[in-house]
Amino acid sequence: MALRVGVVGGGQLARMMIAPAVELGVELRVLAEEDAMAASLAAVAVGDYRDAGTVLGFARTVDVVTFDHEHVPQEVLAVLVESGVAVRPGPSALRFAQDKLLMRARLAELGMPQPDWAAVTDVGALQAFIDAHGGRAVVKTPRGGYDGKGVRVVDAAVEAEDWFAALAEDARGGALLAEELVDFSRELAQQVARRPSGEVRAYDIVETVQRGGVCAEVIAPAPHSSERMRDVAARIGVGIAEGLDVVGMLAVELFETTDQRLLVNELAMRPHNSGHWTQDGAVTSQFEQHLRAVLDLPLGDATGSTPWAVMVNILGGPADGGLDERFDAAMAAHPRAKIHTYGKAPRPGRKVGHVTVTGDDLDDVAYQARAAASLFLD
Amino acid sequence: MALRVGVVGGGQLARMMIAPAVELGVELRVLAEEDAMAASLAAVAVGDYRDAGTVLGFARTVDVVTFDHEHVPQEVLAVLVESGVAVRPGPSALRFAQDKLLMRARLAELGMPQPDWAAVTDVGALQAFIDAHGGRAVVKTPRGGYDGKGVRVVDAAVEAEDWFAALAEDARGGALLAEELVDFSRELAQQVARRPSGEVRAYDIVETVQRGGVCAEVIAPAPHSSERMRDVAARIGVGIAEGLDVVGMLAVELFETTDQRLLVNELAMRPHNSGHWTQDGAVTSQFEQHLRAVLDLPLGDATGSTPWAVMVNILGGPADGGLDERFDAAMAAHPRAKIHTYGKAPRPGRKVGHVTVTGDDLDDVAYQARAAASLFLD
Repeated sequence: MALRVGVVGGGQLARMMIAPAVELGVELRVLAEEDAMAASLAAVAVGDYRDAGTVLGFARTVDVVTFDHEHVPQEVLAVLVESGVAVRPGPSALRFAQDKLLMRARLAELGMPQPDWAAVTDVGALQAFIDAHGGRAVVKTPRGGYDGKGVRVVDAAVEAEDWFAALAEDARGGALLAEELVDFSRELAQQVARRPSGEVRAYDIVETVQRGGVCAEVIAPAPHSSERMRDVAARIGVGIAEGLDVVGMLAVELFETTDQRLLVNELAMRPHNSGHWTQDGAVTSQFEQHLRAVLDLPLGDATGSTPWAVMVNILGGPADGGLDERFDAAMAAHPRAKIHTYGKAPRPGRKVGHVTVTGDDLDDVAYQARAAASLFLD
Repeated sequence: MALRVGVVGGGQLARMMIAPAVELGVELRVLAEEDAMAASLAAVAVGDYRDAGTVLGFARTVDVVTFDHEHVPQEVLAVLVESGVAVRPGPSALRFAQDKLLMRARLAELGMPQPDWAAVTDVGALQAFIDAHGGRAVVKTPRGGYDGKGVRVVDAAVEAEDWFAALAEDARGGALLAEELVDFSRELAQQVARRPSGEVRAYDIVETVQRGGVCAEVIAPAPHSSERMRDVAARIGVGIAEGLDVVGMLAVELFETTDQRLLVNELAMRPHNSGHWTQDGAVTSQFEQHLRAVLDLPLGDATGSTPWAVMVNILGGPADGGLDERFDAAMAAHPRAKIHTYGKAPRPGRKVGHVTVTGDDLDDVAYQARAAASLFLD
């Protein structure tokens, strides 16, 4: 019987595991939140990932459970582990992806470079942090945020009053995360794969271009990066993967400061938008690598297969009709473009697909990728 | 609604269309011969491709019908066309892939270089051909052969007596195909994609290594090939695609003679084993290209993305257990190897998977591919 990987969550990350699973000959089974999701082709069940019985029933049909997102509650994960299910990454790693205060505290223990931060439980404490950091701070809800949600830049603590009020009503209570507003020259991401037996593979560090808190574009490898910087980034990625006992793909979002330091911004313990370029530009894509890692198979070569890759997200999509109505124009104008769509209905700001172009000349590669992606917008 | 491609036949060629279909966002539907075939993930129906009603019912659920093999009878294809189904490649092209005598006659009309040949209807005519060609000939049944089946090298016409007897009982009657035994230095394959509107793209010519009439290995591009030879091969490929009105992928198997001529050996009007390397070594794989071509979308760039690619078939597989039991050894020893398995039970001589390695150094690439593939055998 084929090896069977179960993915909780039916979004585009699960969908993009289908191609390498089919090619390797791994059976992929998806527990989707609803019908007609991105990964429907491999969906064998539809159900609520917050319900332990649902997830356990699904887990019993596979060899290992992994995730399309980090939102499965710890209580559900605990039931899986107690029932003998192989859960990768495990709950003890995932809690650091689920709670940014825990993550900051753990990274501090590991000596990882990060922005100044504090757990603030009331307006007074936040204002003191703001005052100590030049009159501004980033405030984050520790749980539930993604793609810029749950993040605010404030110059007065009262701007987070509603979040403190919500915290007071949350049974888990706790604090908000205050971080210094980093003076960065650009954002980078370092991906690492790790398998249970400990083997790790680091990908090239990439530059990520964010717009409105959402990843718009990724350049691989990050241009103008010194060997020292690449080495530091890889050490940070490997150190976090090992220190947090991550299994599968880990993405470490980094700030490069104006004085050339790297500071850890966010973590993701799954395939990540910053690694979509690997589908077309690396020997082993992050999606194949994630499958290999969670199955505890030897990891694949993570080096780039061409000098440059640029990935541009399709955000929103056409106002009328589907993405495929733009295939003709995009393919005719850009025969080197690798077009990926997620089977999702276009909606303003929604990630509905991406375009990757690889090649020897960064200017040309970036131009082709941007121009092809723009043909899917109005 | 997504564009829908229907594939008749559930083998590994249909299976390998799944990955690019999912990535592009094309809905792939497969009419499989039986349950649990290679392309089962996308199989929406199981039925007999020789039954016009079955195939027509399937065709009504898709935008275009294409094929995993060339065995759908002309009578069935005619029903589809009369019913307004888009059939690509169409029956008028497919008949040349279904009948080698028709193919030889048409290539002769097009002035394509090919071995000396004749339609022989009895032992006497075959013996005359043998006598005129140095005492040996290749005899082929015009219909139904593949992977070396239906092909014999003979030095006396009586060795084909059973085939003449079978012909006499075949309602379609006809003749056997006699061909000169070509004195070749190696075998090559030229792939071309063509869409209904006429756009064509030629891939690099590759060297194919056959063992026992079955493709064992493919080297892309064919080493030591002069620009003139590459140009001649591409012209042959494009000329045949246009002359036979092929839509989709066309593979032209060629002999390179000891005096440096190229002669057409066989044709295949579908993705082909000689192009599996394109999954990992070309900007646009033959499977994505076939989907684009049959949907009449602009074709993708067909150039190689790395200097060399070597594809080695896994023929037979392990005597005990599945291919996935060898993943550990193969992946550990060869992290650059791209392993593809077809979900088929191992059986002596059966194509159950392949391994592709790409890179800059042909010797290393070929070594890695052969060594990784050998780990799937006993």
